[in-house]
Amino acid sequence: MNHTDKEIRQYFKNIFGFKPRHLDPYKIALIHRSVSDNDATFGKINNERLEYLGDAILGSVVADFLYHKYPLEAEGVLTRMRSKLVNRARLNTLAKKLGLDDMVRMDGHITQGCANGNAFEAVVGAIYLDQGYQKTYKIIIHNIFLTHLDMQTVYEEDNDFKSRILIWAQKNKRKVTFAHESVTNGKEHLYKSIVSIDNETVSDGLGFSVKKAEQAAAEKALAMIETPQE
Amino acid sequence: MNHTDKEIRQYFKNIFGFKPRHLDPYKIALIHRSVSDNDATFGKINNERLEYLGDAILGSVVADFLYHKYPLEAEGVLTRMRSKLVNRARLNTLAKKLGLDDMVRMDGHITQGCANGNAFEAVVGAIYLDQGYQKTYKIIIHNIFLTHLDMQTVYEEDNDFKSRILIWAQKNKRKVTFAHESVTNGKEHLYKSIVSIDNETVSDGLGFSVKKAEQAAAEKALAMIETPQE
Repeated sequence: MNHTDKEIRQYFKNIFGFKPRHLDPYKIALIHRSVSDNDATFGKINNERLEYLGDAILGSVVADFLYHKYPLEAEGVLTRMRSKLVNRARLNTLAKKLGLDDMVRMDGHITQGCANGNAFEAVVGAIYLDQGYQKTYKIIIHNIFLTHLDMQTVYEEDNDFKSRILIWAQKNKRKVTFAHESVTNGKEHLYKSIVSIDNETVSDGLGFSVKKAEQAAAEKALAMIETPQE
Repeated sequence: MNHTDKEIRQYFKNIFGFKPRHLDPYKIALIHRSVSDNDATFGKINNERLEYLGDAILGSVVADFLYHKYPLEAEGVLTRMRSKLVNRARLNTLAKKLGLDDMVRMDGHITQGCANGNAFEAVVGAIYLDQGYQKTYKIIIHNIFLTHLDMQTVYEEDNDFKSRILIWAQKNKRKVTFAHESVTNGKEHLYKSIVSIDNETVSDGLGFSVKKAEQAAAEKALAMIETPQE
């Protein structure tokens, strides 16, 4: 879709709650690589560089928010909470909720996959370039996350990846098995856990205990299951 | 080591080039978990929460710096460059160069391992809390990275992880082999590459081509080799 400047301004005002200063970064944030413009100087123009920038900025503002919101929690809890807030599946869902799928210009023939979540990150990059860090924090945390997500629910969401994949298997009538073996990095012994779905290896993980290796492997398997493939 | 307030102020002025406003976050950034203080309200006080925060802030300021420094580079180049700048091995070396190993309070009996790189990230977190985002950007990019690292050399460093691990193997008289197999995530076919050192599996990686899977597996193997184990 190709939107007018007025429509783009209106969208950011209504949905993100602020008025863009310069429209250019937002326009670029809404260009999926499937419709990249060619430019004599900059080559292909699409939202991938902004997505790289926005991914980092999003990580920071969410890290800062959680650091202050949960002053008594250890870093492990904060790290998990952050990855629950900014994982691919969550961002794809959030982007759709924000109507970004109607704003992104992309080739109608490709499946959207992660395009929406990626565009959300690119928009964060654009907001950062246009508004600076402090404003980006306010917009993303207050106008988006706290408005559209129930933090308490996310906080309480199950962290146990092995249980989650076993529940998924039961629901979807798939057979999930965990195998493990001992490996070494030359200095120490580690465990490697291998997850198979219907007897096909899908992921594995390393850890200093079988339990940790299983969690790592199950987390990767879940990410593959939960992320729509492009 | 236990430093006086004056010594801590002096250290940040001389090495990081700014005057701390409040010393508390810096003092916490210099407490390794091996000497955690117990506090009635906050439990164990050490630098791990600040490390979590600083890791994200460091990622952002470096992402922003590279985004503007290399306006013609694709996001893949920027992402690799960023990981070359903030990987564990680089941060450990940088922290030592900054004399952070003499500032961190830790149990003398443990091997330092990643403690210095982690303390560097915690210090970034402390600077962010004390000075805000803009000042942190200036301090970290201008006073630290551009002063202590040659960006051009880092930029030109070899990105090819498979070559790097093969060169390492030759130097260290170890036998490194790559094996690969086809796997599926239930929807698509992927390749899994498995790296073995002296016939012991050390890592693996997934990708949509053998080459990409090998790069992913080699990168993980290199990280294990290059990061001193705690």
